[in-house]
Amino acid sequence: MTLIDGKATATAIKAEIAAEVARMVADGKKRPHLAAILVGHDGGSETYVASKVKACEECGFKSTLIRYEDDVDEATLLEAVDRLNRDEDVDGFIVQLPLPRHISEQKVIEAIDYRKDVDGFHPINVGRQSIGLPCFHSATPAGIMTLLDRYNIPTKGANCVVLGRSNIVGKPVATLMMQKGYPGDATVTVCHRATRNLEEVCRQADIIIAAMGVPGFVKGDMVKEGATVIDVGTTRVPDATRKSGFRLRGDVEFDEVAPKCAYITPVPGGVGPMTIVSLMRNTLLAGQKAIYK
Amino acid sequence: MTLIDGKATATAIKAEIAAEVARMVADGKKRPHLAAILVGHDGGSETYVASKVKACEECGFKSTLIRYEDDVDEATLLEAVDRLNRDEDVDGFIVQLPLPRHISEQKVIEAIDYRKDVDGFHPINVGRQSIGLPCFHSATPAGIMTLLDRYNIPTKGANCVVLGRSNIVGKPVATLMMQKGYPGDATVTVCHRATRNLEEVCRQADIIIAAMGVPGFVKGDMVKEGATVIDVGTTRVPDATRKSGFRLRGDVEFDEVAPKCAYITPVPGGVGPMTIVSLMRNTLLAGQKAIYK
Repeated sequence: MTLIDGKATATAIKAEIAAEVARMVADGKKRPHLAAILVGHDGGSETYVASKVKACEECGFKSTLIRYEDDVDEATLLEAVDRLNRDEDVDGFIVQLPLPRHISEQKVIEAIDYRKDVDGFHPINVGRQSIGLPCFHSATPAGIMTLLDRYNIPTKGANCVVLGRSNIVGKPVATLMMQKGYPGDATVTVCHRATRNLEEVCRQADIIIAAMGVPGFVKGDMVKEGATVIDVGTTRVPDATRKSGFRLRGDVEFDEVAPKCAYITPVPGGVGPMTIVSLMRNTLLAGQKAIYK
Repeated sequence: MTLIDGKATATAIKAEIAAEVARMVADGKKRPHLAAILVGHDGGSETYVASKVKACEECGFKSTLIRYEDDVDEATLLEAVDRLNRDEDVDGFIVQLPLPRHISEQKVIEAIDYRKDVDGFHPINVGRQSIGLPCFHSATPAGIMTLLDRYNIPTKGANCVVLGRSNIVGKPVATLMMQKGYPGDATVTVCHRATRNLEEVCRQADIIIAAMGVPGFVKGDMVKEGATVIDVGTTRVPDATRKSGFRLRGDVEFDEVAPKCAYITPVPGGVGPMTIVSLMRNTLLAGQKAIYK
Protein backbone atom coordinates (compact mmCIF):
# COMPACT_ATOMS: atom_id res chain seq x y z
CA MET A 1 0.00 0.00 0.00
CA THR A 2 1.29 3.42 -0.95
CA LEU A 3 0.10 6.36 1.08
CA ILE A 4 -0.48 9.29 -1.27
CA ASP A 5 1.21 12.20 0.41
CA GLY A 6 -0.83 15.22 -0.61
CA LYS A 7 1.06 17.48 1.73
CA ALA A 8 4.48 16.62 0.27
CA THR A 9 3.12 16.84 -3.28
CA ALA A 10 1.59 20.21 -2.49
CA THR A 11 4.87 21.44 -1.00
CA ALA A 12 6.76 20.32 -4.12
CA ILE A 13 4.31 22.05 -6.45
CA LYS A 14 4.34 25.25 -4.41
CA ALA A 15 8.14 25.25 -4.74
CA GLU A 16 7.77 24.85 -8.52
CA ILE A 17 5.32 27.74 -8.61
CA ALA A 18 7.61 29.89 -6.45
CA ALA A 19 10.51 29.23 -8.86
CA GLU A 20 8.26 30.23 -11.77
CA VAL A 21 7.22 33.41 -9.96
CA ALA A 22 10.87 34.23 -9.22
CA ARG A 23 11.58 33.95 -12.96
CA MET A 24 8.60 36.18 -13.76
CA VAL A 25 9.75 38.83 -11.29
CA ALA A 26 13.34 38.61 -12.59
CA ASP A 27 11.88 39.26 -16.06
CA GLY A 28 10.31 42.43 -14.75
CA LYS A 29 6.81 41.03 -14.56
CA LYS A 30 4.53 41.61 -11.61
CA ARG A 31 3.83 39.01 -8.94
CA PRO A 32 0.53 37.14 -9.32
CA HIS A 33 -2.02 38.61 -6.94
CA LEU A 34 -4.81 36.59 -5.32
CA ALA A 35 -7.57 38.29 -3.37
CA ALA A 36 -10.05 36.57 -1.08
CA ILE A 37 -13.33 37.79 0.33
CA LEU A 38 -14.26 36.27 3.66
CA VAL A 39 -17.67 36.86 5.20
CA GLY A 40 -18.16 36.19 8.91
CA HIS A 41 -16.10 34.02 11.22
CA ASP A 42 -17.00 30.41 10.40
CA GLY A 43 -14.22 28.26 11.83
CA GLY A 44 -13.72 26.17 8.71
CA SER A 45 -13.70 29.19 6.43
CA GLU A 46 -11.21 31.03 8.68
CA THR A 47 -8.88 28.02 8.52
CA TYR A 48 -9.18 27.63 4.75
CA VAL A 49 -8.59 31.29 4.07
CA ALA A 50 -5.60 31.39 6.44
CA SER A 51 -4.14 28.36 4.58
CA LYS A 52 -4.66 30.10 1.27
CA VAL A 53 -2.96 33.28 2.45
CA LYS A 54 -0.03 31.19 3.73
CA ALA A 55 0.16 29.28 0.44
CA CYS A 56 0.29 32.61 -1.41
CA GLU A 57 3.36 33.56 0.64
CA GLU A 58 5.01 30.24 -0.14
CA CYS A 59 4.38 30.75 -3.85
CA GLY A 60 5.61 34.33 -3.87
CA PHE A 61 2.18 35.74 -4.66
CA LYS A 62 0.76 38.96 -3.38
CA SER A 63 -2.42 38.30 -1.42
CA THR A 64 -5.23 40.50 -0.17
CA LEU A 65 -7.88 39.51 2.33
CA ILE A 66 -11.12 41.46 2.39
CA ARG A 67 -13.37 40.78 5.37
CA TYR A 68 -17.04 41.45 5.97
CA GLU A 69 -19.18 40.67 8.96
CA ASP A 70 -22.00 38.11 8.77
CA ASP A 71 -24.61 40.81 8.36
CA VAL A 72 -23.12 42.31 5.18
CA ASP A 73 -25.81 42.77 2.56
CA GLU A 74 -25.70 41.21 -0.89
CA ALA A 75 -25.37 44.54 -2.67
CA THR A 76 -22.25 45.43 -0.69
CA LEU A 77 -20.71 42.07 -1.48
CA LEU A 78 -21.55 42.41 -5.17
CA GLU A 79 -19.89 45.85 -5.15
CA ALA A 80 -16.77 44.31 -3.64
CA VAL A 81 -16.78 41.68 -6.38
CA ASP A 82 -17.17 44.37 -9.00
CA ARG A 83 -14.23 46.33 -7.56
CA LEU A 84 -12.02 43.24 -7.72
CA ASN A 85 -13.21 42.56 -11.28
CA ARG A 86 -12.02 46.03 -12.26
CA ASP A 87 -8.83 46.09 -10.17
CA GLU A 88 -6.05 45.55 -12.71
CA ASP A 89 -3.58 44.51 -10.04
CA VAL A 90 -5.75 41.57 -8.94
CA ASP A 91 -5.21 38.55 -11.20
CA GLY A 92 -7.67 36.24 -9.52
CA PHE A 93 -9.95 36.17 -6.51
CA ILE A 94 -12.25 33.93 -4.55
CA VAL A 95 -15.26 34.44 -2.37
CA GLN A 96 -14.94 31.88 0.44
CA LEU A 97 -18.06 29.71 0.69
CA PRO A 98 -20.42 29.15 2.42
CA LEU A 99 -22.02 32.60 2.56
CA PRO A 100 -24.73 33.62 5.05
CA ARG A 101 -28.20 32.51 3.97
CA HIS A 102 -29.45 35.96 3.05
CA ILE A 103 -26.90 36.14 0.23
CA SER A 104 -27.26 34.18 -3.02
CA GLU A 105 -24.02 32.25 -3.52
CA GLN A 106 -24.89 31.65 -7.15
CA LYS A 107 -25.44 35.36 -7.80
CA VAL A 108 -22.08 36.17 -6.23
CA ILE A 109 -20.27 33.45 -8.19
CA GLU A 110 -21.80 34.64 -11.46
CA ALA A 111 -20.82 38.23 -10.68
CA ILE A 112 -17.13 37.24 -10.69
CA ASP A 113 -15.36 37.96 -13.98
CA TYR A 114 -14.73 34.43 -15.30
CA ARG A 115 -11.20 35.51 -16.27
CA LYS A 116 -10.46 36.02 -12.54
CA ASP A 117 -12.54 33.05 -11.32
CA VAL A 118 -9.62 30.98 -9.97
CA ASP A 119 -11.98 28.74 -8.00
CA GLY A 120 -13.42 27.61 -11.34
CA PHE A 121 -17.03 27.93 -10.13
CA HIS A 122 -18.35 30.36 -12.77
CA PRO A 123 -20.64 28.68 -15.34
CA ILE A 124 -18.24 29.61 -18.16
CA ASN A 125 -15.38 27.75 -16.49
CA VAL A 126 -17.66 24.84 -15.57
CA GLY A 127 -18.88 24.64 -19.17
CA ARG A 128 -15.41 24.97 -20.67
CA GLN A 129 -14.15 22.22 -18.36
CA SER A 130 -17.00 19.97 -19.43
CA ILE A 131 -16.31 20.63 -23.11
CA GLY A 132 -12.56 20.14 -22.56
CA LEU A 133 -11.48 23.71 -23.37
CA PRO A 134 -8.73 25.63 -21.52
CA CYS A 135 -10.21 27.09 -18.33
CA PHE A 136 -9.77 27.43 -14.60
CA HIS A 137 -10.46 23.90 -13.43
CA SER A 138 -12.27 23.67 -10.13
CA ALA A 139 -9.70 23.26 -7.42
CA THR A 140 -10.51 19.95 -5.72
CA PRO A 141 -11.03 17.92 -8.92
CA ALA A 142 -7.84 19.41 -10.39
CA GLY A 143 -5.96 18.50 -7.19
CA ILE A 144 -7.18 14.90 -7.45
CA MET A 145 -6.06 14.68 -11.08
CA THR A 146 -2.64 16.03 -10.14
CA LEU A 147 -2.23 13.39 -7.43
CA LEU A 148 -3.15 10.59 -9.85
CA ASP A 149 -0.67 12.04 -12.32
CA ARG A 150 2.22 12.51 -9.88
CA TYR A 151 1.80 8.98 -8.53
CA ASN A 152 1.48 7.53 -12.07
CA ILE A 153 -1.73 5.77 -11.12
CA PRO A 154 -3.19 4.01 -14.17
CA THR A 155 -6.58 5.44 -15.17
CA LYS A 156 -7.12 4.33 -18.78
CA GLY A 157 -10.02 1.89 -18.89
CA ALA A 158 -10.12 1.80 -15.10
CA ASN A 159 -13.49 1.53 -13.38
CA CYS A 160 -13.74 4.78 -11.46
CA VAL A 161 -16.57 5.17 -8.97
CA VAL A 162 -17.33 8.71 -7.82
CA LEU A 163 -19.37 8.91 -4.62
CA GLY A 164 -21.31 12.17 -4.60
CA ARG A 165 -22.63 14.44 -7.36
CA SER A 166 -21.85 17.89 -6.02
CA ASN A 167 -21.09 20.79 -8.34
CA ILE A 168 -17.69 21.38 -6.82
CA VAL A 169 -16.37 17.81 -6.65
CA GLY A 170 -18.48 14.90 -7.88
CA LYS A 171 -19.70 16.19 -11.23
CA PRO A 172 -16.48 17.94 -12.34
CA VAL A 173 -14.14 15.13 -11.25
CA ALA A 174 -16.35 12.66 -13.13
CA THR A 175 -16.00 14.81 -16.24
CA LEU A 176 -12.22 15.00 -15.88
CA MET A 177 -11.85 11.26 -15.25
CA MET A 178 -13.79 10.39 -18.42
CA GLN A 179 -12.00 12.85 -20.72
CA LYS A 180 -9.52 11.60 -23.31
CA GLY A 181 -5.87 11.35 -22.28
CA TYR A 182 -4.06 10.86 -18.97
CA PRO A 183 -5.16 11.12 -16.25
CA GLY A 184 -8.56 10.22 -17.67
CA ASP A 185 -10.03 7.68 -20.11
CA ALA A 186 -11.65 5.94 -17.14
CA THR A 187 -15.08 4.34 -17.19
CA VAL A 188 -16.82 6.58 -14.68
CA THR A 189 -19.82 5.74 -12.51
CA VAL A 190 -21.35 8.48 -10.37
CA CYS A 191 -23.19 7.25 -7.26
CA HIS A 192 -25.33 9.19 -4.79
CA ARG A 193 -28.07 8.72 -2.24
CA ALA A 194 -30.47 7.20 -4.78
CA THR A 195 -27.95 4.55 -5.87
CA ARG A 196 -28.91 0.93 -5.29
CA ASN A 197 -26.31 -1.76 -4.49
CA LEU A 198 -23.76 0.91 -3.75
CA GLU A 199 -21.48 -1.52 -1.89
CA GLU A 200 -21.39 -3.81 -4.91
CA VAL A 201 -20.69 -0.93 -7.29
CA CYS A 202 -17.79 0.14 -5.07
CA ARG A 203 -16.38 -3.38 -4.94
CA GLN A 204 -15.99 -3.32 -8.73
CA ALA A 205 -14.02 -0.08 -8.67
CA ASP A 206 -10.35 0.25 -9.53
CA ILE A 207 -10.52 3.84 -8.29
CA ILE A 208 -12.95 5.22 -5.70
CA ILE A 209 -13.28 8.97 -5.27
CA ALA A 210 -15.30 9.50 -2.10
CA ALA A 211 -16.95 12.90 -1.87
CA MET A 212 -20.17 12.36 0.05
CA GLY A 213 -19.24 14.27 3.19
CA VAL A 214 -20.28 11.28 5.34
CA PRO A 215 -17.48 10.33 7.77
CA GLY A 216 -16.35 6.71 7.49
CA PHE A 217 -18.87 5.89 4.75
CA VAL A 218 -16.53 3.64 2.75
CA LYS A 219 -15.87 0.45 4.72
CA GLY A 220 -13.26 -2.25 4.19
CA ASP A 221 -15.72 -4.68 2.58
CA MET A 222 -16.67 -2.08 -0.08
CA VAL A 223 -13.18 -1.96 -1.57
CA LYS A 224 -11.48 -4.56 -3.73
CA GLU A 225 -7.84 -5.60 -3.28
CA GLY A 226 -5.49 -3.30 -5.15
CA ALA A 227 -7.90 -0.40 -5.53
CA THR A 228 -6.95 3.27 -5.35
CA VAL A 229 -9.02 5.28 -2.88
CA ILE A 230 -9.17 9.08 -2.95
CA ASP A 231 -10.86 10.54 0.12
CA VAL A 232 -12.31 14.01 -0.38
CA GLY A 233 -14.25 14.10 2.86
CA THR A 234 -13.27 16.63 5.52
CA THR A 235 -15.96 16.57 8.17
CA ARG A 236 -15.18 18.12 11.56
CA VAL A 237 -16.03 15.66 14.29
CA PRO A 238 -15.81 16.45 18.02
CA ASP A 239 -12.58 15.26 19.64
CA ALA A 240 -12.02 16.21 23.28
CA THR A 241 -8.36 15.17 23.09
CA ARG A 242 -7.59 18.01 20.66
CA LYS A 243 -7.00 21.57 21.66
CA SER A 244 -9.39 22.69 18.90
CA GLY A 245 -12.04 20.28 20.21
CA PHE A 246 -12.44 18.57 16.84
CA ARG A 247 -10.58 16.58 14.23
CA LEU A 248 -11.10 16.10 10.50
CA ARG A 249 -12.59 12.82 9.36
CA GLY A 250 -12.69 11.59 5.79
CA ASP A 251 -15.41 9.63 4.02
CA VAL A 252 -13.26 6.50 4.22
CA GLU A 253 -12.81 4.15 7.21
CA PHE A 254 -9.07 4.42 6.75
CA ASP A 255 -7.90 1.65 9.07
CA GLU A 256 -10.13 -0.95 7.41
CA VAL A 257 -9.65 0.23 3.85
CA ALA A 258 -5.96 1.12 3.66
CA PRO A 259 -4.59 -2.44 3.95
CA LYS A 260 -6.51 -3.45 0.80
CA CYS A 261 -5.42 -0.49 -1.30
CA ALA A 262 -2.67 -0.02 -3.86
CA TYR A 263 -2.90 3.72 -3.16
CA ILE A 264 -4.89 5.74 -0.65
CA THR A 265 -5.04 9.38 0.46
CA PRO A 266 -5.12 10.17 4.18
CA VAL A 267 -7.32 12.80 5.85
CA PRO A 268 -5.89 15.25 6.62
CA GLY A 269 -2.85 15.56 4.35
CA GLY A 270 -4.33 14.06 1.18
CA VAL A 271 -6.67 15.94 -1.11
CA GLY A 272 -6.97 19.01 1.15
CA PRO A 273 -3.52 20.51 0.53
CA MET A 274 -3.89 19.77 -3.19
CA THR A 275 -7.10 21.81 -3.38
CA ILE A 276 -5.18 24.85 -2.19
CA VAL A 277 -2.33 24.11 -4.60
CA SER A 278 -4.80 23.98 -7.51
CA LEU A 279 -5.98 27.44 -6.50
CA MET A 280 -2.35 28.60 -6.51
CA ARG A 281 -1.81 27.08 -9.96
CA ASN A 282 -4.93 28.83 -11.29
CA THR A 283 -3.67 32.10 -9.82
CA LEU A 284 -0.30 31.61 -11.54
CA LEU A 285 -2.09 30.94 -14.84
CA ALA A 286 -4.23 34.03 -14.27
CA GLY A 287 -1.14 36.12 -13.59
CA GLN A 288 0.46 34.84 -16.79
CA LYS A 289 -2.78 35.37 -18.71
CA ALA A 290 -2.19 31.82 -19.89
CA ILE A 291 -5.86 30.93 -20.24
CA TYR A 292 -7.71 34.17 -20.83
CA LYS A 293 -6.21 37.41 -22.17
CA MET B 1 -42.05 -4.37 -25.25
CA THR B 2 -43.18 -0.79 -25.77
CA LEU B 3 -41.88 1.03 -28.81
CA ILE B 4 -41.16 4.63 -27.83
CA ASP B 5 -42.73 6.70 -30.56
CA GLY B 6 -40.55 9.79 -30.82
CA LYS B 7 -42.37 10.98 -33.89
CA ALA B 8 -45.80 10.93 -32.25
CA THR B 9 -44.41 12.52 -29.07
CA ALA B 10 -42.74 15.20 -31.14
CA THR B 11 -45.97 15.86 -33.02
CA ALA B 12 -47.88 16.19 -29.75
CA ILE B 13 -45.34 18.62 -28.29
CA LYS B 14 -45.24 20.71 -31.45
CA ALA B 15 -49.04 21.01 -31.19
CA GLU B 16 -48.65 22.15 -27.55
CA ILE B 17 -46.07 24.72 -28.62
CA ALA B 18 -48.27 25.90 -31.49
CA ALA B 19 -51.17 26.40 -29.05
CA GLU B 20 -48.86 28.41 -26.77
CA VAL B 21 -47.70 30.53 -29.71
CA ALA B 22 -51.31 31.13 -30.76
CA ARG B 23 -52.01 32.42 -27.23
CA MET B 24 -48.94 34.66 -27.37
CA VAL B 25 -49.99 36.12 -30.71
CA ALA B 26 -53.58 36.59 -29.48
CA ASP B 27 -52.09 38.53 -26.55
CA GLY B 28 -50.37 40.84 -29.00
CA LYS B 29 -46.91 39.33 -28.56
CA LYS B 30 -44.65 38.55 -31.46
CA ARG B 31 -44.09 35.08 -32.84
CA PRO B 32 -40.86 33.39 -31.71
CA HIS B 33 -38.28 33.67 -34.46
CA LEU B 34 -35.59 31.05 -35.10
CA ALA B 35 -32.78 31.70 -37.55
CA ALA B 36 -30.39 29.09 -38.93
CA ILE B 37 -27.07 29.50 -40.68
CA LEU B 38 -26.25 26.71 -43.12
CA VAL B 39 -22.84 26.49 -44.74
CA GLY B 40 -22.41 24.37 -47.87
CA HIS B 41 -24.59 21.54 -49.12
CA ASP B 42 -23.84 18.52 -46.92
CA GLY B 43 -26.72 16.08 -47.40
CA GLY B 44 -27.28 15.47 -43.70
CA SER B 45 -27.16 19.15 -42.82
CA GLU B 46 -29.58 20.04 -45.63
CA THR B 47 -32.03 17.45 -44.30
CA TYR B 48 -31.71 18.58 -40.68
CA VAL B 49 -32.14 22.26 -41.53
CA ALA B 50 -35.13 21.52 -43.77
CA SER B 51 -36.70 19.56 -40.87
CA LYS B 52 -36.08 22.46 -38.51
CA VAL B 53 -37.66 24.97 -40.90
CA LYS B 54 -40.68 22.67 -41.26
CA ALA B 55 -40.93 22.26 -37.47
CA CYS B 56 -40.91 26.06 -37.12
CA GLU B 57 -43.93 26.24 -39.41
CA GLU B 58 -45.72 23.58 -37.38
CA CYS B 59 -45.02 25.52 -34.18
CA GLY B 60 -46.13 28.86 -35.62
CA PHE B 61 -42.60 30.30 -35.43
CA LYS B 62 -41.06 32.67 -37.89
CA SER B 63 -37.92 31.14 -39.38
CA THR B 64 -35.04 32.53 -41.38
CA LEU B 65 -32.47 30.49 -43.26
CA ILE B 66 -29.15 32.12 -44.07
CA ARG B 67 -26.96 30.19 -46.51
CA TYR B 68 -23.27 30.40 -47.28
CA GLU B 69 -21.20 28.39 -49.71
CA ASP B 70 -18.48 26.01 -48.47
CA ASP B 71 -15.76 28.54 -49.16
CA VAL B 72 -17.15 31.26 -46.87
CA ASP B 73 -14.41 32.60 -44.63
CA GLU B 74 -14.57 32.58 -40.86
CA ALA B 75 -14.74 36.36 -40.55
CA THR B 76 -17.83 36.52 -42.77
CA LEU B 77 -19.50 33.81 -40.70
CA LEU B 78 -18.62 35.59 -37.44
CA GLU B 79 -20.12 38.80 -38.85
CA ALA B 80 -23.32 36.90 -39.67
CA VAL B 81 -23.41 35.60 -36.07
CA ASP B 82 -22.88 39.11 -34.78
CA ARG B 83 -25.73 40.45 -36.90
CA LEU B 84 -28.07 37.78 -35.52
CA ASN B 85 -26.89 38.54 -31.99
CA ARG B 86 -27.91 42.16 -32.50
CA ASP B 87 -31.11 41.51 -34.47
CA GLU B 88 -33.89 42.16 -31.95
CA ASP B 89 -36.43 40.25 -33.99
CA VAL B 90 -34.40 37.01 -33.79
CA ASP B 91 -35.06 35.19 -30.50
CA GLY B 92 -32.69 32.31 -31.08
CA PHE B 93 -30.46 30.92 -33.80
CA ILE B 94 -28.29 27.99 -34.66
CA VAL B 95 -25.27 27.43 -36.86
CA GLN B 96 -25.72 23.99 -38.39
CA LEU B 97 -22.71 21.77 -37.73
CA PRO B 98 -20.39 20.45 -39.06
CA LEU B 99 -18.66 23.49 -40.56
CA PRO B 100 -15.92 23.30 -43.24
CA ARG B 101 -12.49 22.56 -41.77
CA HIS B 102 -11.09 26.03 -42.32
CA ILE B 103 -13.61 27.43 -39.83
CA SER B 104 -13.30 26.93 -36.05
CA GLU B 105 -16.60 25.52 -34.84
CA GLN B 106 -15.72 26.40 -31.26
CA LYS B 107 -15.00 30.02 -32.16
CA VAL B 108 -18.34 30.28 -33.95
CA ILE B 109 -20.24 28.66 -31.08
CA GLU B 110 -18.64 31.00 -28.55
CA ALA B 111 -19.47 34.02 -30.72
CA ILE B 112 -23.18 33.27 -30.34
CA ASP B 113 -24.90 35.33 -27.63
CA TYR B 114 -25.68 32.66 -25.01
CA ARG B 115 -29.13 34.20 -24.58
CA LYS B 116 -29.88 33.19 -28.19
CA ASP B 117 -27.97 29.90 -28.12
CA VAL B 118 -31.00 27.60 -28.54
CA ASP B 119 -28.74 24.65 -29.42
CA GLY B 120 -27.31 24.90 -25.88
CA PHE B 121 -23.72 24.54 -27.11
CA HIS B 122 -22.25 27.77 -25.64
CA PRO B 123 -20.02 27.17 -22.59
CA ILE B 124 -22.36 29.25 -20.41
CA ASN B 125 -25.30 27.01 -21.22
CA VAL B 126 -23.18 23.86 -20.87
CA GLY B 127 -21.92 25.06 -17.48
CA ARG B 128 -25.36 26.12 -16.27
CA GLN B 129 -26.77 22.75 -17.30
CA SER B 130 -24.01 20.98 -15.39
CA ILE B 131 -24.66 23.10 -12.29
CA GLY B 132 -28.42 22.61 -12.62
CA LEU B 133 -29.33 26.24 -13.34
CA PRO B 134 -31.99 27.38 -15.82
CA CYS B 135 -30.47 27.37 -19.31
CA PHE B 136 -30.95 26.20 -22.87
CA HIS B 137 -30.43 22.45 -22.52
CA SER B 138 -28.68 20.84 -25.43
CA ALA B 139 -31.27 19.48 -27.75
CA THR B 140 -30.64 15.75 -27.97
CA PRO B 141 -30.18 15.16 -24.20
CA ALA B 142 -33.29 17.24 -23.51
CA GLY B 143 -35.22 15.20 -26.09
CA ILE B 144 -34.17 11.96 -24.38
CA MET B 145 -35.25 13.27 -20.97
CA THR B 146 -38.62 14.30 -22.41
CA LEU B 147 -39.18 10.80 -23.83
CA LEU B 148 -38.36 9.18 -20.47
CA ASP B 149 -40.76 11.60 -18.82
CA ARG B 150 -43.64 11.19 -21.26
CA TYR B 151 -43.39 7.40 -21.06
CA ASN B 152 -43.10 7.49 -17.25
CA ILE B 153 -39.98 5.33 -17.38
CA PRO B 154 -38.56 4.89 -13.86
CA THR B 155 -35.10 6.45 -13.49
CA LYS B 156 -34.58 6.86 -9.73
CA GLY B 157 -31.78 4.56 -8.63
CA ALA B 158 -31.72 2.95 -12.08
CA ASN B 159 -28.38 1.84 -13.49
CA CYS B 160 -28.01 4.04 -16.55
CA VAL B 161 -25.18 3.27 -18.96
CA VAL B 162 -24.29 5.99 -21.44
CA LEU B 163 -22.27 4.80 -24.42
CA GLY B 164 -20.18 7.69 -25.75
CA ARG B 165 -18.74 10.81 -24.12
CA SER B 166 -19.40 13.47 -26.76
CA ASN B 167 -20.00 17.07 -25.82
CA ILE B 168 -23.40 17.16 -27.49
CA VAL B 169 -24.86 13.88 -26.20
CA GLY B 170 -22.84 11.63 -23.87
CA LYS B 171 -21.56 14.11 -21.32
CA PRO B 172 -24.68 16.30 -21.04
CA VAL B 173 -27.15 13.40 -20.94
CA ALA B 174 -25.04 11.80 -18.19
CA THR B 175 -25.26 15.05 -16.22
CA LEU B 176 -29.04 15.24 -16.64
CA MET B 177 -29.57 11.58 -15.71
CA MET B 178 -27.65 11.98 -12.44
CA GLN B 179 -29.30 15.23 -11.35
CA LYS B 180 -31.81 15.24 -8.50
CA GLY B 181 -35.47 14.77 -9.41
CA TYR B 182 -37.34 13.07 -12.22
CA PRO B 183 -36.25 12.15 -14.80
CA GLY B 184 -32.88 11.73 -13.12
CA ASP B 185 -31.51 10.34 -9.85
CA ALA B 186 -29.99 7.48 -11.84
CA THR B 187 -26.64 5.88 -11.12
CA VAL B 188 -24.83 6.84 -14.30
CA THR B 189 -21.89 5.06 -15.91
CA VAL B 190 -20.25 6.64 -18.97
CA CYS B 191 -18.50 4.18 -21.32
CA HIS B 192 -16.30 4.86 -24.33
CA ARG B 193 -13.60 3.29 -26.46
CA ALA B 194 -11.25 2.81 -23.48
CA THR B 195 -13.88 0.94 -21.45
CA ARG B 196 -13.08 -2.65 -20.51
CA ASN B 197 -15.81 -5.33 -20.21
CA LEU B 198 -18.25 -3.06 -21.97
CA GLU B 199 -20.64 -5.93 -22.72
CA GLU B 200 -20.80 -6.81 -19.04
CA VAL B 201 -21.35 -3.18 -18.01
CA CYS B 202 -24.23 -2.95 -20.49
CA ARG B 203 -25.79 -6.17 -19.21
CA GLN B 204 -26.15 -4.58 -15.76
CA ALA B 205 -27.97 -1.55 -17.14
CA ASP B 206 -31.61 -0.74 -16.52
CA ILE B 207 -31.31 2.05 -19.10
CA ILE B 208 -28.84 2.15 -22.00
CA ILE B 209 -28.35 5.38 -23.90
CA ALA B 210 -26.33 4.51 -27.00
CA ALA B 211 -24.53 7.46 -28.59
CA MET B 212 -21.36 6.02 -30.11
CA GLY B 213 -22.23 6.55 -33.77
CA VAL B 214 -21.36 2.91 -34.50
CA PRO B 215 -24.22 1.18 -36.37
CA GLY B 216 -25.50 -1.97 -34.67
CA PHE B 217 -22.99 -1.72 -31.80
CA VAL B 218 -25.42 -2.87 -29.08
CA LYS B 219 -26.24 -6.55 -29.63
CA GLY B 220 -28.94 -8.70 -28.06
CA ASP B 221 -26.59 -10.36 -25.59
CA MET B 222 -25.51 -6.98 -24.18
CA VAL B 223 -28.98 -6.10 -22.89
CA LYS B 224 -30.78 -7.53 -19.88
CA GLU B 225 -34.43 -8.49 -19.91
CA GLY B 226 -36.67 -5.53 -19.15
CA ALA B 227 -34.13 -2.83 -19.95
CA THR B 228 -34.92 0.50 -21.59
CA VAL B 229 -32.79 1.24 -24.65
CA ILE B 230 -32.48 4.73 -26.11
CA ASP B 231 -30.74 4.76 -29.49
CA VAL B 232 -29.15 8.08 -30.42
CA GLY B 233 -27.24 6.74 -33.43
CA THR B 234 -28.15 8.04 -36.89
CA THR B 235 -25.47 6.80 -39.27
CA ARG B 236 -26.23 6.88 -42.99
CA VAL B 237 -25.50 3.48 -44.52
CA PRO B 238 -25.74 2.72 -48.26
CA ASP B 239 -29.03 1.13 -49.30
CA ALA B 240 -29.56 0.54 -53.02
CA THR B 241 -33.28 -0.16 -52.47
CA ARG B 242 -33.89 3.47 -51.36
CA LYS B 243 -34.36 6.33 -53.75
CA SER B 244 -31.89 8.36 -51.62
CA GLY B 245 -29.33 5.54 -51.84
CA PHE B 246 -29.02 5.29 -48.04
CA ARG B 247 -30.91 4.59 -44.87
CA LEU B 248 -30.37 5.64 -41.25
CA ARG B 249 -29.00 3.03 -38.87
CA GLY B 250 -28.93 3.33 -35.11
CA ASP B 251 -26.28 2.14 -32.66
CA VAL B 252 -28.56 -0.70 -31.60
CA GLU B 253 -29.14 -4.03 -33.40
CA PHE B 254 -32.86 -3.42 -33.11
CA ASP B 255 -34.18 -6.84 -34.15
CA GLU B 256 -32.05 -8.64 -31.55
CA VAL B 257 -32.44 -6.11 -28.77
CA ALA B 258 -36.09 -5.05 -29.00
CA PRO B 259 -37.63 -8.37 -27.84
CA LYS B 260 -35.70 -8.12 -24.54
CA CYS B 261 -36.67 -4.50 -23.80
CA ALA B 262 -39.35 -2.93 -21.68
CA TYR B 263 -38.97 0.20 -23.82
CA ILE B 264 -36.91 0.95 -26.92
CA THR B 265 -36.61 3.82 -29.39
CA PRO B 266 -36.53 3.03 -33.10
CA VAL B 267 -34.23 4.68 -35.67
CA PRO B 268 -35.57 6.66 -37.39
CA GLY B 269 -38.56 7.97 -35.48
CA GLY B 270 -37.12 7.82 -31.94
CA VAL B 271 -34.68 10.38 -30.59
CA GLY B 272 -34.26 12.25 -33.90
CA PRO B 273 -37.65 14.02 -33.97
CA MET B 274 -37.27 14.83 -30.26
CA THR B 275 -33.98 16.64 -30.88
CA ILE B 276 -35.76 19.02 -33.22
CA VAL B 277 -38.62 19.45 -30.76
CA SER B 278 -36.14 20.41 -28.02
CA LEU B 279 -34.81 23.10 -30.32
CA MET B 280 -38.38 24.34 -30.80
CA ARG B 281 -38.96 24.37 -27.05
CA ASN B 282 -35.76 26.35 -26.50
CA THR B 283 -36.89 28.80 -29.18
CA LEU B 284 -40.25 29.20 -27.46
CA LEU B 285 -38.46 29.85 -24.14
CA ALA B 286 -36.19 32.35 -25.89
CA GLY B 287 -39.20 34.11 -27.41
CA GLN B 288 -40.80 34.30 -23.98
CA LYS B 289 -37.53 35.41 -22.38
CA ALA B 290 -38.30 32.67 -19.88
CA ILE B 291 -34.65 31.84 -19.16
CA TYR B 292 -32.65 34.98 -19.90
CA LYS B 293 -34.00 38.53 -19.97
